[in-house]
Amino acid sequence: MTIQVGIVGATGYTALEVARLLLSHPEATLVAATSRADAGKPLSAVHPSLSGRCDVVIETLDADEIAKKCDVVMCCLPHGASAETCKQLVEAGTRVVDFSADFRLSNRELYEKWYGVTHPWPERIGKTPYGLPEFYADEIRSSDLVANPGCYPTSVILPLQPLLHSDMIEATDIIVDSKSGVSGAGRSPKLGTLYCEVNDSIAAYGVGSHRHQPEMVDILHRAAGTLPSILFTPHLTPMDRGILSTIYVKPKTDAGGGKVHAKQLIETWQKRYRDCPFLVPTDALPATKHVAGTNYVHMTARDAADRIVIVCAIDNLTKGASGAAIQNMNVMFGVNEGLGL
Amino acid sequence: MTIQVGIVGATGYTALEVARLLLSHPEATLVAATSRADAGKPLSAVHPSLSGRCDVVIETLDADEIAKKCDVVMCCLPHGASAETCKQLVEAGTRVVDFSADFRLSNRELYEKWYGVTHPWPERIGKTPYGLPEFYADEIRSSDLVANPGCYPTSVILPLQPLLHSDMIEATDIIVDSKSGVSGAGRSPKLGTLYCEVNDSIAAYGVGSHRHQPEMVDILHRAAGTLPSILFTPHLTPMDRGILSTIYVKPKTDAGGGKVHAKQLIETWQKRYRDCPFLVPTDALPATKHVAGTNYVHMTARDAADRIVIVCAIDNLTKGASGAAIQNMNVMFGVNEGLGL
Amino acid sequence: MTIQVGIVGATGYTALEVARLLLSHPEATLVAATSRADAGKPLSAVHPSLSGRCDVVIETLDADEIAKKCDVVMCCLPHGASAETCKQLVEAGTRVVDFSADFRLSNRELYEKWYGVTHPWPERIGKTPYGLPEFYADEIRSSDLVANPGCYPTSVILPLQPLLHSDMIEATDIIVDSKSGVSGAGRSPKLGTLYCEVNDSIAAYGVGSHRHQPEMVDILHRAAGTLPSILFTPHLTPMDRGILSTIYVKPKTDAGGGKVHAKQLIETWQKRYRDCPFLVPTDALPATKHVAGTNYVHMTARDAADRIVIVCAIDNLTKGASGAAIQNMNVMFGVNEGLGL
Amino acid sequence: MTIQVGIVGATGYTALEVARLLLSHPEATLVAATSRADAGKPLSAVHPSLSGRCDVVIETLDADEIAKKCDVVMCCLPHGASAETCKQLVEAGTRVVDFSADFRLSNRELYEKWYGVTHPWPERIGKTPYGLPEFYADEIRSSDLVANPGCYPTSVILPLQPLLHSDMIEATDIIVDSKSGVSGAGRSPKLGTLYCEVNDSIAAYGVGSHRHQPEMVDILHRAAGTLPSILFTPHLTPMDRGILSTIYVKPKTDAGGGKVHAKQLIETWQKRYRDCPFLVPTDALPATKHVAGTNYVHMTARDAADRIVIVCAIDNLTKGASGAAIQNMNVMFGVNEGLGL
Repeated sequence: MTIQVGIVGATGYTALEVARLLLSHPEATLVAATSRADAGKPLSAVHPSLSGRCDVVIETLDADEIAKKCDVVMCCLPHGASAETCKQLVEAGTRVVDFSADFRLSNRELYEKWYGVTHPWPERIGKTPYGLPEFYADEIRSSDLVANPGCYPTSVILPLQPLLHSDMIEATDIIVDSKSGVSGAGRSPKLGTLYCEVNDSIAAYGVGSHRHQPEMVDILHRAAGTLPSILFTPHLTPMDRGILSTIYVKPKTDAGGGKVHAKQLIETWQKRYRDCPFLVPTDALPATKHVAGTNYVHMTARDAADRIVIVCAIDNLTKGASGAAIQNMNVMFGVNEGLGL
Repeated sequence: MTIQVGIVGATGYTALEVARLLLSHPEATLVAATSRADAGKPLSAVHPSLSGRCDVVIETLDADEIAKKCDVVMCCLPHGASAETCKQLVEAGTRVVDFSADFRLSNRELYEKWYGVTHPWPERIGKTPYGLPEFYADEIRSSDLVANPGCYPTSVILPLQPLLHSDMIEATDIIVDSKSGVSGAGRSPKLGTLYCEVNDSIAAYGVGSHRHQPEMVDILHRAAGTLPSILFTPHLTPMDRGILSTIYVKPKTDAGGGKVHAKQLIETWQKRYRDCPFLVPTDALPATKHVAGTNYVHMTARDAADRIVIVCAIDNLTKGASGAAIQNMNVMFGVNEGLGL
Repeated sequence: MTIQVGIVGATGYTALEVARLLLSHPEATLVAATSRADAGKPLSAVHPSLSGRCDVVIETLDADEIAKKCDVVMCCLPHGASAETCKQLVEAGTRVVDFSADFRLSNRELYEKWYGVTHPWPERIGKTPYGLPEFYADEIRSSDLVANPGCYPTSVILPLQPLLHSDMIEATDIIVDSKSGVSGAGRSPKLGTLYCEVNDSIAAYGVGSHRHQPEMVDILHRAAGTLPSILFTPHLTPMDRGILSTIYVKPKTDAGGGKVHAKQLIETWQKRYRDCPFLVPTDALPATKHVAGTNYVHMTARDAADRIVIVCAIDNLTKGASGAAIQNMNVMFGVNEGLGL
Repeated sequence: MTIQVGIVGATGYTALEVARLLLSHPEATLVAATSRADAGKPLSAVHPSLSGRCDVVIETLDADEIAKKCDVVMCCLPHGASAETCKQLVEAGTRVVDFSADFRLSNRELYEKWYGVTHPWPERIGKTPYGLPEFYADEIRSSDLVANPGCYPTSVILPLQPLLHSDMIEATDIIVDSKSGVSGAGRSPKLGTLYCEVNDSIAAYGVGSHRHQPEMVDILHRAAGTLPSILFTPHLTPMDRGILSTIYVKPKTDAGGGKVHAKQLIETWQKRYRDCPFLVPTDALPATKHVAGTNYVHMTARDAADRIVIVCAIDNLTKGASGAAIQNMNVMFGVNEGLGL
């Protein structure tokens, strides 16, 4: 059996990354791609790196047609629009991995507060598994809809969950300083992502107002059983891909009465993630280049003053988006979680 | 009168930046440059961007010869070696701006603890003005030796000093997450600064152990009258120049009994730095590109959760090194502080 | 006297570069800036690197108003629109440096063939000095309108003119392979200049069809007295600024009956450009970084097989646009040609 | 059967690229790696992107030990040293893909002239297949030693061979202007490849003297049956990976008496390379980004003046080095040529 995969919203960077990963996936193949603006063109005309490697022609979205062809659809539409399309696709009988934020949060109120739209399919919010197989593999396996995680949250939830869960760090005053590559801002032409605006420069943005902050808090609450307080500041960094999150936490007191040390955090990760194919606790300080183009997560911790500094690196397009989606697909279809990644 | 300037240790990036700035300085001119390795070569052979613009030939350092030719020397040697050379130069009768850390700290113990060497001229440590004319113009004006500030400390001390001094923020648990361009690592060939190692990648380094941390604390203590606790994490960022420091502080309660707000911090800077030509408090979030190649300092503040996030951008080679040195020279020689910058 | 300068079309990169250069010009000052889209905003809101350094507020273009305030206007509009505005400005009594191609070519037919528009002021085409003071200083000095040169043509005409003029190289089969930074493509948001499209990548464009090819040929014909045949291929290179043109020419036979050598080309440049402040023939191979942010032109030549390889580097925004405009302004107003550059 | 692979000289970028590609190769696995300087360390300590993915520990080279463990060795040593090691490895009974230039050229005289060393194993020069399976698959299949091609030559030989062979273009006055990413310069720390020297800058190097020029000429002579005259100029481009070669050729007259057109060149490639998995003639202009990290070759042609401009893009580390080596290995061991690529 080969898993037949479709992409809805095929012109962006996450769609290209899905296509790239499927090219070397031994048990899945891309069979359809849709885009309103580019219907009729070969997918390789929109993404020239697929030239000579991919014959798919972009079509206009028809949920029934797509559902007929595809075992699973990667839905790469913007929030709001995505939920509506996911509903049509699921009702037409295919399974969906949704790249938008529409089904990530625990409840409709939180979603509508942060996203400012009425949710098109409220029955499913809070009832859709969050696509981190490291925590939710069972739910993902049996679901017809998976909420693929946000890129920044992935780089924060993975290191923090085991530490909050085992009560090694304070849940208060967690400071997350993240640096992302420019692909995270999408492929629509905008002044702020022109080469000459961002090359050779770094800047903070969305200070205190980025929508990934409530996602981190909500999912950690759900996955670790405690409601953390997180101050999140993203930065636009002159690189194509990658997220580096530097996380400042306060250690709790351990059983022996002393402060928890960085070394203990690393050991906790090693134990917790022993069976997770992509999570790599390290002694060395991670760099985004070391995980570029891969689904791997490098994380370390260092004692510094009264705090512990955690550093976590992922590729925002791979483990932060399309690689995670393939990993979720693998789980949904019962093949090896790491296949093709 | 034209100020006659020499550079000792002329092969690195800060030396080139001094030379570049002097080319358009109306009242100072580069007359000598020394380097052990490159003596005999034109300075423009080592720095091709000076071709056709600069006739200086590199010579071997002879303190008496240099002192005869130069009103002031920019000493760009590594710590330890620098202090020894500064002593010779000052004793030979010239004035010196020292780019190393040798005379920045308040006492010998702190220096020897962090730098691991015996100080070659301990009489002058703690008695040499720290080269921020924003605070120490009077001392700089009359000194034969000025300790040019570190790049990271400049980006942290300038925003924090007025806030600590006026008791608007807590001195405890200040978190500084800084991002620097690669020129900060110098021009000696090393694996870690090769193009293919750092391009398209960001990484933390020196977590909890960077020598600029005690410098920040010590100078803020001296300049603001309170001893702050700072956790400092530098990051190597894929850009030639620039430092962006994101600083997480806790607001105190103001006279009205409410929490101090970001807006008040900006107003404090505007008042404090009204007469400082290069300090620009802004509402917009700074980017390092906006100050690249200039001596300007952009800084803003935003409320976020229980903290205030301060963002400060400088060019590490200009205000963080050679521009500050020219500014100090201007003050030392009684010309307009901003001349040629 | 201070030259009062206005910028028409103030939102792009060349406008910013004009403003940057004027900030340190001792005898000129920016007094007005216009832009349809951004009228009412401070210029520093559109170009944050001007924050704290420039008080000009953007206005809507009114030719009479601008002419009243300005001794000279830098017109940074697109072709077609530019000629029309230049006409209004000149008729309103101010002098103009036109950044567009509207007045560069020798005749209307050539212009209308390549630009596909009817020329709005045909009386002036062929009668406007081409803004290379290296060749046309006298005409520039007395003109109310100067055609600022194209960036690629500058990097090709300057090295080739003396060689064609002195009959040292063949006029046929000249191959020009140019590499430009991304700022040459302007500041309007387009897919092709997004960071993630061009970072870490190089590509040819406009092969055999770029409008700067007829400009090179036409101006060399005019300035060197011979009609060269040039094959021109531009490349988009992952850098903010800079043009490197690699030019493949065939040497002629010299007086002694041997082939002309690269060394002789360098000597010819040294002689021809002795009094030109920015032209630097070198033995070393130029890099765009060596001229970045400056008005300098580095050029060298090397023998290779039956040809000579010429390499010329400029900054496309400075000598290739705004620096040349300031240089032209200096000539127009009788101050030192290199002032402020 | 899984092919057991060793890497000799494991610390550079080509070695890392071999390791990266083997991680997803379904029928080959990395079993050994050697390096004098780093023996005893895990390979992932030298290449952190292998952390958590590769258990190989670096050892000192012992040809017999390596031959025992490995079916094939990727020899990534510098020229001269490489030939000597290849001899030992082949004599110890393993097969070798040599990344150096030691066995590429047709005869010893040419090699010793350009490389300035006495060849350590002259019996094999001129008798070792050149590792382009597109031309030499049969010889590669049965050989114990394969000369992996140079990066620049790959980007030039592949487009030119079919055109010279079918007599569509002149063999004289071919001009090759190539642009390479910085990884082509290796991983040894050198001033010229520091980030701050090459970032945001482009420069020519090795004009008229690069060793890949005789390789192009020699192999095209061998593979196309005609001795071309090539003027080759490489450029260092600010990107990690990629080569773009812009090739200026003169079309011959075709059977109908007219000049050959670009379209005919593209058709010739399509026919010639129909069965070659990685060669992609395109209508669009290639960019190095479109082939980054892949073994693909994009090539197109455009009419321009009296010439045709050919543009060819490869990844210098993949098709230009390690990908070609894996492709050669696949041929040597009788598995599908494109496996794992």
